[in-house]
Amino acid sequence: MRLSALVFLLALPALRADEGMWTFDNIPTKQIKAKYGVELDAAWLKQLQLATVRFPGGTGAFVSREGLVVTNHHVGRGAIAQVSTAKADLVKDGFTAAKPGDEIKVPGLELMLLVSSDDVTARVNGAVAPGTPDQEALKARRNALADLRKAEEARTGLTCEPVTLYQGGEYWLYRYRKFKDVRLVAAPEVQVASFGGDPDNYTYPRWNLDFALFRVYEDDKPYRPEAFLPFTQTPLRAGDLTFISGHPGTTYRGQTLAQMRYAKEIGIPFQLANLARQRGALEAYAKTSPEAARVSADAIYGISNGQKRLTGQLMGLSKPESLALVASREAELRAAVVRDAGLLTGSGGSWDKIAEAVARQKALLKEYTCVGTRGCTLFGHALTLVRIQEQQAKPSAQRLPEFSDGSLKATRERLLSPRPVQVGLDQARLAWVLREALEQLGVEHAYVKAVLGGRSPEAVAQAAYAGTKLQDPAFRKQLLEGGREALASHQDPLLVLARQLEPFQRSLHHQWEEQVQSVFAEHGGRIARARFQIHGKSQYPDATFTLRLSWGAVATYDTGSGTKAQPFTTFLGLFDRHEGWGGNAAAAEDGAFTLPERWLKAKPRLALETPFNFAYGCDTVGGNSGSPVVNLKGEFVGINFDSVLEGQGGYYVYDAATKRAVAADARAILETLRKVMDANHLANELLAK
Amino acid sequence: MRLSALVFLLALPALRADEGMWTFDNIPTKQIKAKYGVELDAAWLKQLQLATVRFPGGTGAFVSREGLVVTNHHVGRGAIAQVSTAKADLVKDGFTAAKPGDEIKVPGLELMLLVSSDDVTARVNGAVAPGTPDQEALKARRNALADLRKAEEARTGLTCEPVTLYQGGEYWLYRYRKFKDVRLVAAPEVQVASFGGDPDNYTYPRWNLDFALFRVYEDDKPYRPEAFLPFTQTPLRAGDLTFISGHPGTTYRGQTLAQMRYAKEIGIPFQLANLARQRGALEAYAKTSPEAARVSADAIYGISNGQKRLTGQLMGLSKPESLALVASREAELRAAVVRDAGLLTGSGGSWDKIAEAVARQKALLKEYTCVGTRGCTLFGHALTLVRIQEQQAKPSAQRLPEFSDGSLKATRERLLSPRPVQVGLDQARLAWVLREALEQLGVEHAYVKAVLGGRSPEAVAQAAYAGTKLQDPAFRKQLLEGGREALASHQDPLLVLARQLEPFQRSLHHQWEEQVQSVFAEHGGRIARARFQIHGKSQYPDATFTLRLSWGAVATYDTGSGTKAQPFTTFLGLFDRHEGWGGNAAAAEDGAFTLPERWLKAKPRLALETPFNFAYGCDTVGGNSGSPVVNLKGEFVGINFDSVLEGQGGYYVYDAATKRAVAADARAILETLRKVMDANHLANELLAK
Repeated sequence: MRLSALVFLLALPALRADEGMWTFDNIPTKQIKAKYGVELDAAWLKQLQLATVRFPGGTGAFVSREGLVVTNHHVGRGAIAQVSTAKADLVKDGFTAAKPGDEIKVPGLELMLLVSSDDVTARVNGAVAPGTPDQEALKARRNALADLRKAEEARTGLTCEPVTLYQGGEYWLYRYRKFKDVRLVAAPEVQVASFGGDPDNYTYPRWNLDFALFRVYEDDKPYRPEAFLPFTQTPLRAGDLTFISGHPGTTYRGQTLAQMRYAKEIGIPFQLANLARQRGALEAYAKTSPEAARVSADAIYGISNGQKRLTGQLMGLSKPESLALVASREAELRAAVVRDAGLLTGSGGSWDKIAEAVARQKALLKEYTCVGTRGCTLFGHALTLVRIQEQQAKPSAQRLPEFSDGSLKATRERLLSPRPVQVGLDQARLAWVLREALEQLGVEHAYVKAVLGGRSPEAVAQAAYAGTKLQDPAFRKQLLEGGREALASHQDPLLVLARQLEPFQRSLHHQWEEQVQSVFAEHGGRIARARFQIHGKSQYPDATFTLRLSWGAVATYDTGSGTKAQPFTTFLGLFDRHEGWGGNAAAAEDGAFTLPERWLKAKPRLALETPFNFAYGCDTVGGNSGSPVVNLKGEFVGINFDSVLEGQGGYYVYDAATKRAVAADARAILETLRKVMDANHLANELLAK
Repeated sequence: MRLSALVFLLALPALRADEGMWTFDNIPTKQIKAKYGVELDAAWLKQLQLATVRFPGGTGAFVSREGLVVTNHHVGRGAIAQVSTAKADLVKDGFTAAKPGDEIKVPGLELMLLVSSDDVTARVNGAVAPGTPDQEALKARRNALADLRKAEEARTGLTCEPVTLYQGGEYWLYRYRKFKDVRLVAAPEVQVASFGGDPDNYTYPRWNLDFALFRVYEDDKPYRPEAFLPFTQTPLRAGDLTFISGHPGTTYRGQTLAQMRYAKEIGIPFQLANLARQRGALEAYAKTSPEAARVSADAIYGISNGQKRLTGQLMGLSKPESLALVASREAELRAAVVRDAGLLTGSGGSWDKIAEAVARQKALLKEYTCVGTRGCTLFGHALTLVRIQEQQAKPSAQRLPEFSDGSLKATRERLLSPRPVQVGLDQARLAWVLREALEQLGVEHAYVKAVLGGRSPEAVAQAAYAGTKLQDPAFRKQLLEGGREALASHQDPLLVLARQLEPFQRSLHHQWEEQVQSVFAEHGGRIARARFQIHGKSQYPDATFTLRLSWGAVATYDTGSGTKAQPFTTFLGLFDRHEGWGGNAAAAEDGAFTLPERWLKAKPRLALETPFNFAYGCDTVGGNSGSPVVNLKGEFVGINFDSVLEGQGGYYVYDAATKRAVAADARAILETLRKVMDANHLANELLAK
């Protein structure tokens, strides 16, 4: 890792952002060396891999010899809420364990560490005879992967996951070590972790101290990880090259032009319209009482988050150069395929097949979307109960995906979860789900007729929630264990509704699988294989919530308003934005810009010039929340927590000019631990090498 | 002025921005009372009017009993530069007069105070017989106004200006008191006054302490103005109603739909393309040496400023609702005109006449733009010299506008100005002007043939500047005084070029006046008169760099990035943005985010929570730079210096959601005078009532 790389970077601002979320088996180290003059050796990469852990829905990293793990506050928030009590709201007030004995175990929280992985493409493809119809091929591959997983878990005792890369161009088996004793060590107040709330989400400049510290235990003792990332003592500067190791969730960059056009013209606009109506329904419910407002807040925030992300995606896809780039790459690949008889036979027709499937996707979209439980918790439980006995009686390979051997346990756990359901909110959701069906599908649609029976959506929802007992986990357990017959005839109104939904939903699911998903899987795979044959693995696969490496420099970017975003923010700006909204006393918009009293008191002690957040050109998407950002020495410099609206088009097409991730600076974490959170011992632990 | 107005405002965010730049003779006080519950009486208005002064290109206000005047640093910058010396760069380093005797007189700087005004519409229209062709009518009105002005100046001894309001719906004579002894009292460093420079221009949140203090003297003693605006001691808050009194330059809101469509589809895109090419030419020159870069910086900044403003205008016009609003208002007015026989005769055909003139404007645009001196200083002097003798020989009414009695003195002063010309930059400009003619009009165009004679634009420019002596003011004076014959035959190469340009430019100017401008003037006036007859004066006239009042509340707005701008910024944010770019030591982009050492030293003394800038919903455009912002009590709360990119569409169509002006807070001025500029005496003077 030579210092000259930095000089080089500063001189070449065009190189400030880099494309790709690369699998650790296929890091283009030569390309990195050619561009930056730095050589990432196998030991460096292994160290980073073994320090990175997967949280439910996000990423984290070992950051001390004694098993401290850092992640985003918003990734750990569910866990922090779970260990809060009526007296101690740790989400609101923050938490610091003064000594190891004060660290709070989070029941059920499990972290996963990728230990090793195998390419099983040949074995999976070997399970499919040539000429097999697409949907059967899809099932055969799923079964082959499930068998491999089962065998490998038995052999190694590790948790194994099948991974489909490159739209089916490759199949892998990833082996994870699982950590089951995870304890909360420290977290700032949510108000600081998510300062600016919904308004500032996806924006920059930003002031979010979005971190929380956990510790992994084994045998009731702090776990000593094989690898960890010490907090750096080298100040990070604009232009410095950084690396991010994490689990980006989903991207669509391998889609064909037809698929992306669909996303731009049909899919995303449809989703945005859906979200807007859903938001309207939930906001109407939230207005009915302060308690309704409180319990709806997270759901409404989630919708707003989706609206922003999709708006950013649409902005990106709508830039003429985006789809022009996709079109030219596709034309190039298709021309190369035409020149090779073997490729032509295997994948020459695949683009047209996918285009046909897109046409089917378009035709099915409205029904497939509207006929379902759509996030309504009790309706979802009801549908699970209606199906589970019949599904369990079949061989795993013939079941619906959520009842297969690999997923059944989680499905049962979800069904029996003791977590209280917000029944009022859930009823409002059901009313919305049914109203959508009525308005989008029309009063004459068979499902609408069956489920409404001439009544209004609101009346049906009201009657269902007035009569149901499904909110009681014990009742659900009783139904589950009461045998197939009893369950099949039980007249709980939500079960009755779910039975009306079931055949329609199953049929649509089947059509979607057969006419859309299996074609995308099969022919996406064929296109990927053609691409491998022509280019080798010079490209990275779409994100799949598996471990990836990206890199890029700390860098500004052009904002839409005509100025450039500063590479770093500082504590000064946190207080500027707080005071600029009038401080806690004034009407701070939605409370998004208030600060905890502890912070206002700590202000005179704080070194206000300390960097707080920074923008950097690593290629990330959701799932990279909590991912560690490291420098050339592999030291922890910050924790990723967001990326800017302007770059959300990166879900489909990467654009170096706008793709900027946002991280909380390691120095802000240390300064806060020492000066606000009374946690010098943790700051010292994080700095110890 | 009742406090309840504030409560009302906070409760009704939709009312946060208000439309209109109203003349002081026609303030809709009833409308304001109905909306805000506050009554602006005549004394309040008169006080504000008599405290507001006009600077060259901007506005200022008396802010102390002893004649202190505040304006923007960027409005006073020319004056500050003028009184700088080789040893003391007051623009760069700032200035504080420790005592009255240290205040520095700015030769030639004159301020204007509007004392009274008369509606002379009847007299001006009386000079035009019915049926007079448009261009003759335009001239007759100009002459009538010139005569009125002359007579009134002789009668009162005041400076009088004719003012055309409502596209010619009204004609006024404004009487100004002129102050000729204006002295520089204090100014911060330009780096703080324009912190963020070109990148931050037109953006918000913002941290510009864009103020300078001058003092008016009479008889070598501080002048005691009839009215002044004391600095408030009531903290300004979000939602507070504010008023701005100033001289907005030009708006186009009275244009017809045809004119606005032209602006959107032809005019602005044409100007933007022009500016982009001009910027390319000047940036290429700037790269030739550090000195070339230095002397080009202001010009390039000016182009960038224009690009941003025009981009904002185009953004506004491109919103579908903008022209839809114009179209519906126009359709409504036209329908009303059709229903009234008198109106139909007078103005029924005016929209079509204007549409025809727009078609001519489109046809002439390229030639009218490319055939001229286009900001090339010496080429401009040459054209003035080529014309001046012949023009002076004619009666004023028959001359080109810049040689008329009212303008001749200024034209001569410009010609003889001792200000040094940056010859290298000026030559680069001429090369660009000629290249534009060649590329836009084509090699076969008669003017191109005449002026280039087969040579390249660059060669012609180089030869002209190698041979000319026009950079010498003494030489220009000698030519001017040498008599018509000598001048007509002088072979200075720029005079030769200007003689080639002259007939083409004159012909195009004539066509433009006859086919475009006079039609806009005549028929714009007819439409305005129809509107008066139907609606009365319930509307405000387009801006004309004459005194106007606007009002609106301190208010946030939605930025394009998904968040809301905070109503206030503070000193904290100034240092955040500075530190976030890496401080003075790091590569701050273009130096835009550096801070003077004095500020870094003063930081520990500063109350960093002090408000710095604020965003507010007053309706402003360029010319309002330096305008005082006052509260309900008529006290000074801030000084306007910019408005945001998102609201620039307001040049054409007002949009309450995006129209936000930006001001430097009075508290930031006081804090800086006391803690940074060693000027407690001035802070005290500003607070004294």
